[in-house]
Amino acid sequence: MRTLTPADLHDIAAGSAVLGTGGGGDPYIGELAALRSLDEFGPPRLIGVDEIVDTDRVVIPFMVGSPVPLIEKFPLGKELTNAYHALSRFLSDPVTAVMPVEIGGVNSMVPLSLSSRLGKPVVDADCMGRAFPEGQLITLTLDGIGMSPVSLADERGNSVILETCDNFWLERFSRSLAIDFGAIAAGVGAPLTGRQVRESTVHGSLSYAERIGRAIREARAAKQDGVAAILSETRGFEIFRGKITDVQRRIERGWTLGEAILEGSEGYAGSRLVVRFQNENLVAIRDDAIVASVPDLITILDADLGDAITTEHLRYGYRVVVVGIRCDAKWRTPAGIALAGPRHFGYEVDYVPIEQRLGGSATPPG
Amino acid sequence: MRTLTPADLHDIAAGSAVLGTGGGGDPYIGELAALRSLDEFGPPRLIGVDEIVDTDRVVIPFMVGSPVPLIEKFPLGKELTNAYHALSRFLSDPVTAVMPVEIGGVNSMVPLSLSSRLGKPVVDADCMGRAFPEGQLITLTLDGIGMSPVSLADERGNSVILETCDNFWLERFSRSLAIDFGAIAAGVGAPLTGRQVRESTVHGSLSYAERIGRAIREARAAKQDGVAAILSETRGFEIFRGKITDVQRRIERGWTLGEAILEGSEGYAGSRLVVRFQNENLVAIRDDAIVASVPDLITILDADLGDAITTEHLRYGYRVVVVGIRCDAKWRTPAGIALAGPRHFGYEVDYVPIEQRLGGSATPPG
Repeated sequence: MRTLTPADLHDIAAGSAVLGTGGGGDPYIGELAALRSLDEFGPPRLIGVDEIVDTDRVVIPFMVGSPVPLIEKFPLGKELTNAYHALSRFLSDPVTAVMPVEIGGVNSMVPLSLSSRLGKPVVDADCMGRAFPEGQLITLTLDGIGMSPVSLADERGNSVILETCDNFWLERFSRSLAIDFGAIAAGVGAPLTGRQVRESTVHGSLSYAERIGRAIREARAAKQDGVAAILSETRGFEIFRGKITDVQRRIERGWTLGEAILEGSEGYAGSRLVVRFQNENLVAIRDDAIVASVPDLITILDADLGDAITTEHLRYGYRVVVVGIRCDAKWRTPAGIALAGPRHFGYEVDYVPIEQRLGGSATPPG
Repeated sequence: MRTLTPADLHDIAAGSAVLGTGGGGDPYIGELAALRSLDEFGPPRLIGVDEIVDTDRVVIPFMVGSPVPLIEKFPLGKELTNAYHALSRFLSDPVTAVMPVEIGGVNSMVPLSLSSRLGKPVVDADCMGRAFPEGQLITLTLDGIGMSPVSLADERGNSVILETCDNFWLERFSRSLAIDFGAIAAGVGAPLTGRQVRESTVHGSLSYAERIGRAIREARAAKQDGVAAILSETRGFEIFRGKITDVQRRIERGWTLGEAILEGSEGYAGSRLVVRFQNENLVAIRDDAIVASVPDLITILDADLGDAITTEHLRYGYRVVVVGIRCDAKWRTPAGIALAGPRHFGYEVDYVPIEQRLGGSATPPG
């Protein structure tokens, strides 16, 4: 158990944006939401998975929908506690902790904000080890664990409880409702038991994000290369360096879909990279060949600062470095690849682990 | 209290199709669903509003969505009891009776089917006195009564509980979810108290439907004019006679929208009538002038049999009589007209009661 400071929250938000692979929302929004709750209700507490016991009941708060309207809807607060209380009426056992569903600029921070508000600790784990655009793409699905019942709520007093036969239906209903709620809604997923948290989640992911964020911050303070610090911390791979020459984006079913096109520079001069996204970056295509794909992480970083650039902030002219980071081992099983691999998103290619594709070209696995 | 026979169910379904004004679904489907429940669980019981006491708790089962897929989804059953049980978990007081939300070929029959299944009586009342295409267009809304919580369910085991700040949000969420459920879902609305039933519903509407259905059946048996029997029973008005020459229909947001165009015959020769619908018939336009509108009832009847033709069954070449029937007095208040009058549906005309428009042309008010 450890109490988190405002600096810790900053690091977690910044690192989560890197692991959020373009999605998961603006880390600045996430950080502000968590800071505001800290100011008002006290600091959140982080506990390790090894501190969880079988009788624990860990709920999963999140925001669902398109990240763009989130900026207008800030601050998060009432809708989140509304969703929590709507769910609580359903539960027989008291909730003992909260946990993120995914690691992203906003959804990493939402449980930290709720932790302050409820005085309950946050478990250092999540259900993706990254961000994904669909709610059923969670490690729980791999183990046959449904997230139902889930409550969704807004700040007006509307709430919805979803009990679905699987996590696919949950995603389907949540997405439609998020659009009706005004493009985004706060949600809280049903409690996992301590045992389910131990067995079926990605462990240590909040502190992993925090280490990445700290590496960026310390590199910047020391006027060192933030990108190199991230690659070192994540044992990641440089995929490309260049300038954004075009960004196509459209909103569909509550997702931001599109692609960014990069013109290479330095060692990549004369080459072209396309990064396709559905909230999150899905594939990186260099000169017409896929060089990285889900479930591995593809993140576009600001070349100077090392900060992750989320999908909604991609702009013409940005100088960027695209990096690849290994996904959690749960995603590299046949079931994991079937659930969240390139074919799920419509790319008819086999998944090849990023270190096999790029292992020779950059930082070796440590 | 009276026990309903299969013949009663037939009459209620047939009469409900007349009061359903084109919407509310195929009365044959509704009748079959209720008959099947009667066969399996025993006959439903009908009680009058005067038999309701304050401590009664009356839930409102219904189908929401597009009537066309209902035909494929038949028989109704499991989804309805699933929705009922999902709601029941929320309730502190036991449910004592059920009641229709609207009068239509299917939604009149759904509570009768659930009545058989649960062994609880159906109240002879509803929340519209007709059918309307949007869930907030209920007399409860006029009295500030929310229908939340509402449960929606399907036969797969998916269920959703909606708690909304008003009946407009309830409609919005229900419609999206119905589409996700596969274009139609079963729902159960929160219990009304006995007092709310007495004060804020349309009384006697199931037995009104039954009388209309019986009039059609008896006219047919006596080889008499079914249309005349309906006009007599409802103190209604003949609007037009003719042949359907065109039907335009499209599905949008789960509604069947469009219009039927009729070429006049007999006293209407040389004239043209357009009936516009959104599931239910909204306005009748004769030679470019509105001659009847919501909230009054506009129903297209088979000229030979007197049966109501629902929106999804309108076909080129049918010989029909279009009739107008007075809506319940609750809809004729300023609040009622504002909620469900022509302007709500985008027709920039004032509501004029049908007897003022057509009072001189047909059966006088009895």
